[in-house]
Amino acid sequence: MRESELHEHIARHSSGLGSDVVVGPGDDCAVVRTPTGDVLLLTVDQLIEGRHFGAGTPIDAIARKAVARSVSDIAAMAGEPAWSVATAALPTDDTHAADLYDRLAAWARRWRCPLVGGDLATTAGPVSLTVTVIGRAHRARGPVLRSTAKPGEGVYVTGALGGSLASGRHLTFEPRVDEARALGDTLGDRLTSMIDLSDGLGRDAGRVARASGVRIEIDAALVSLADGVTTWRQALGDGEDHELCFTALGDVPGEVAGTPITRVGRVVEGAGCVVLDHGAEHDASEMGWEHEGGRQ
Amino acid sequence: MRESELHEHIARHSSGLGSDVVVGPGDDCAVVRTPTGDVLLLTVDQLIEGRHFGAGTPIDAIARKAVARSVSDIAAMAGEPAWSVATAALPTDDTHAADLYDRLAAWARRWRCPLVGGDLATTAGPVSLTVTVIGRAHRARGPVLRSTAKPGEGVYVTGALGGSLASGRHLTFEPRVDEARALGDTLGDRLTSMIDLSDGLGRDAGRVARASGVRIEIDAALVSLADGVTTWRQALGDGEDHELCFTALGDVPGEVAGTPITRVGRVVEGAGCVVLDHGAEHDASEMGWEHEGGRQ
Repeated sequence: MRESELHEHIARHSSGLGSDVVVGPGDDCAVVRTPTGDVLLLTVDQLIEGRHFGAGTPIDAIARKAVARSVSDIAAMAGEPAWSVATAALPTDDTHAADLYDRLAAWARRWRCPLVGGDLATTAGPVSLTVTVIGRAHRARGPVLRSTAKPGEGVYVTGALGGSLASGRHLTFEPRVDEARALGDTLGDRLTSMIDLSDGLGRDAGRVARASGVRIEIDAALVSLADGVTTWRQALGDGEDHELCFTALGDVPGEVAGTPITRVGRVVEGAGCVVLDHGAEHDASEMGWEHEGGRQ
Repeated sequence: MRESELHEHIARHSSGLGSDVVVGPGDDCAVVRTPTGDVLLLTVDQLIEGRHFGAGTPIDAIARKAVARSVSDIAAMAGEPAWSVATAALPTDDTHAADLYDRLAAWARRWRCPLVGGDLATTAGPVSLTVTVIGRAHRARGPVLRSTAKPGEGVYVTGALGGSLASGRHLTFEPRVDEARALGDTLGDRLTSMIDLSDGLGRDAGRVARASGVRIEIDAALVSLADGVTTWRQALGDGEDHELCFTALGDVPGEVAGTPITRVGRVVEGAGCVVLDHGAEHDASEMGWEHEGGRQ
């Protein structure tokens, strides 16, 4: 089953989750409301040896990426990380359990979601980790969904895109928590939708388009290219940028929290996500990286 | 590294998690406080093919056990399950992703913690699942820890012990959520500590003793034996009972929420957990099942 088919299946079967579930499966985080009205964000990601990191990757880099991926999901809603729990499955003869715990705890602390619990098991298979992060929604703006873009808005990205795997940036990226909070502070309700770029701008902007019922047009000439990336196709091709892609109404600053912001396109009526390049139109919603399986 | 050594390592490195972390690693759940004062419980468990279930186990049974184990941790604090997120790593050629999602969602709903998100990946290794459950603390009693037993209290268990793996009960046990809530309602602060029995009464009561700085004495003749179990050693030996073990001051009802309660011992001054059998004293804190790796 392809990721998109699984997503459709899950969307069809996720109604009626209860009045305290504001957003169920299908966005970067779930959004729930506590009895006294706090709005919390929940997300979990897994990291599997041979899929998300190679054998021989240092433990600190594995731990960092595991925490950073989930923190990036909280950033994608403009939330603040609050707490985390983790699991690890390690080979029976692995002697790094305590070291791994320490590194997970250190990175969780760095991104202000202290590691408060977890579970460790042995496995005959590859090393695998999961990190669940619970976050608080942006106090003023609330959670920024991917389903609320509207025609007439601009499409923006933080930072520069492409080459994450080749450059090793997929192990060292900085989740855009501060940038997302600042965008929420500065733009308020003019910050209309957001997603983090895990599978490439084309595919992820395509998800915003689909969830919002709009069409997104990306200008090839505007795409911000990471060092060593020379074409927009490369910039859209790799995935794991973990930059933010957002839509906004009106003026947007050129930089936020020290990170440049680039306008890369626009939201229009219609469906799908395309790249416009010298008058030619390329379907972008299938470009990039379909991570096996799928996020829900 | 043995589980107990890893626990000590984690305890040494888990101070200063922040003022909103009421209980960090080391209990059945972490306990955190939201900005407006809700007290939440966080727990995650993993289920790995070949460790926690055999190849060929029906998907529904795998999903049930994955959810039930985490729900049982919420019960162990006398909490109410509220929401869950899950991960699954499946072989590339596995066609059951949608079915597995449906079964996880169904069991999560059954235990009132709707599945609000997750992540699916493919793996070259064994099937593995994780379920994170967020719960609400008992409204009147608050979270019931394992570190608060005191000399003079009785030691109790719900249900009957032993034979969980042989009988298949490890796939069909009912997390004692209703029983735990009723105990909190009925006993209030007289319900002094609680744990769920994942590794056998001896080992788990030993954890309560260690965390509380007390000694627990179990009367061999009082241990409630599951069908087919004929000796107290068998009853303590298997693990995965997922019954509650709690300490209480004063009178305790013989049944709660339809489940029998048995007094099996007492809390005294000292250290360790022993079984008293016809005048002989057996160290019980190493009996049972040390799940590889360890819970934190």
